[in-house]
Amino acid sequence: MLMNIVAPYNTGRRFAGLLPEGEDLIASVIRMCIQHSVRMGVFSIIGAVRSATFGIFDQRQKVYVTRTVEGSFDILTCTGNVSPKDGKPFVHAKIILGDEKGNLTGGHLFSETLVFYAEFDLLEMIMEPYERTYDERTGLFLWPYA
Amino acid sequence: MLMNIVAPYNTGRRFAGLLPEGEDLIASVIRMCIQHSVRMGVFSIIGAVRSATFGIFDQRQKVYVTRTVEGSFDILTCTGNVSPKDGKPFVHAKIILGDEKGNLTGGHLFSETLVFYAEFDLLEMIMEPYERTYDERTGLFLWPYA
Amino acid sequence: MLMNIVAPYNTGRRFAGLLPEGEDLIASVIRMCIQHSVRMGVFSIIGAVRSATFGIFDQRQKVYVTRTVEGSFDILTCTGNVSPKDGKPFVHAKIILGDEKGNLTGGHLFSETLVFYAEFDLLEMIMEPYERTYDERTGLFLWPYA
Repeated sequence: MLMNIVAPYNTGRRFAGLLPEGEDLIASVIRMCIQHSVRMGVFSIIGAVRSATFGIFDQRQKVYVTRTVEGSFDILTCTGNVSPKDGKPFVHAKIILGDEKGNLTGGHLFSETLVFYAEFDLLEMIMEPYERTYDERTGLFLWPYA
Repeated sequence: MLMNIVAPYNTGRRFAGLLPEGEDLIASVIRMCIQHSVRMGVFSIIGAVRSATFGIFDQRQKVYVTRTVEGSFDILTCTGNVSPKDGKPFVHAKIILGDEKGNLTGGHLFSETLVFYAEFDLLEMIMEPYERTYDERTGLFLWPYA
Repeated sequence: MLMNIVAPYNTGRRFAGLLPEGEDLIASVIRMCIQHSVRMGVFSIIGAVRSATFGIFDQRQKVYVTRTVEGSFDILTCTGNVSPKDGKPFVHAKIILGDEKGNLTGGHLFSETLVFYAEFDLLEMIMEPYERTYDERTGLFLWPYA
């Protein structure tokens, strides 16, 4: 059995605010992290998008099956983290959207996802960064197992 | 391009507990914030409701399309924040509900939404409060853009 | 009217990492809490599962209606807390899953739910623990009302 990794971390700075309207959600989070030198963090966002791209990981084929939607969608949750991949800030997030009929959809968040408005809360994690590394078993770039 | 706003904030008090059964979720969060003089905060709630009202923002008509549901619904997520509007605590939250058939629904949370049980976790944000202000482009009361 | 309970708490340690692949999600969180002597906490998880069991509480019959699913599902949210029940760490969590067609399902999380990968963020709460106690009105083991 593989061990899980459990690292304690210290709470760094916290940031709250609005992501820029009409821009890509992931790109905006990354830009903010670069501007403020945040290497690792966790965040939560609520708001709305004009369009979104997201997918679910097919665990057998080891590929994301993606979809793109356009229209009026509220962001009901967008939960994710930032950690380095190839030395640069990388966002891993999931999003759930609601439409006017009361239907929900969502998945692993991709670009391009255009913000209508987005209120974020980001916590910087102070720790030895988890560098994302390719994991053969899952086919994903994961934090390292012990 | 509009700039996003990114304010660092300090972590204030944290509160956890149960919201009162049979009462409106938003009213209960506001009452708690007034009792404890919380001006800004973020919160997360899980539990169940007896009934709920929620909506999705129609970005063209600039109006919320709302729905009300009654019955046995678990609160799978309820993520939101508190910040002043017209000088009073205002709750902005999204909710996702699940029913017995495994179907999910949800949206922007409105009153009246009656709690069956609700476990909350609230973090006070120490910062110059973001006063909600009408934003012409979106038609929403948002935190101010720079 | 029953009063809500609102206890302030102090922020304890924070932990982030991966839950072990192929193991039950709830059991893994409990094992981690025992290993690190975490008595109360709140957590958030994103990732994917191979299979999951979850339910919605039927408020009239006072019983959970449960479902089990198998296949490729991303964990879009998994929000919960840890607090003692009969003196042992007990996990109360809700989960939302997405499938390849863009459909979402979820509910109150049960075992057995097998992790494909799961990135967690856990905050220890420093406070007099809320012992879960049977509540006659709801039929649930809740934190105590005042």
